[in-house]
Amino acid sequence: MLNVNSYFDDNVKSIAFQGKTQATTVGVMDLGEFTFGTSQYEVMTIIDGELEVKLPGTTSWNTFTNGNQFEVEANSSFEVKVVRQTAYHCTYE
Amino acid sequence: MLNVNSYFDDNVKSIAFQGKTQATTVGVMDLGEFTFGTSQYEVMTIIDGELEVKLPGTTSWNTFTNGNQFEVEANSSFEVKVVRQTAYHCTYE
Repeated sequence: MLNVNSYFDDNVKSIAFQGKTQATTVGVMDLGEFTFGTSQYEVMTIIDGELEVKLPGTTSWNTFTNGNQFEVEANSSFEVKVVRQTAYHCTYE
Repeated sequence: MLNVNSYFDDNVKSIAFQGKTQATTVGVMDLGEFTFGTSQYEVMTIIDGELEVKLPGTTSWNTFTNGNQFEVEANSSFEVKVVRQTAYHCTYE
């Protein structure tokens, strides 16, 4: 059973699955700007695309593209500007 | 606008997007055995998971896991046994 979730008026969609050791999703972000909240510690890896990301506690935007990774603590939020449609992989702890 | 497609009684789901140069999907395969047909040349990359794959014109099964890639010609088919739930990235030409 594969659950699909939609966020931000269907501008972000993801499919949940069980990774080797962690709950995991793969998803796609459409063009736009989004603020994601976290309920768990997350590690996000860009599969294919380009994001500008402002991580919690920082004031600068950094670019993340294929293979780049960032982590976000639980109960936090991060801002994303999607430069081109972007596929991502995310694990949750 | 992000389109989600389902195949094999919802045991495979994918999200389509525009990659840098190619039509692309990311998806997840649930446990099972599936025969995929191709209408275009495809390059499939395993993001996270493990598949045994029998490619067209071969009689052997080979294992593909994170980061591994295979290609399949248009108008062909390949067989997959999903060892654990597997996220994949696929480009189409």
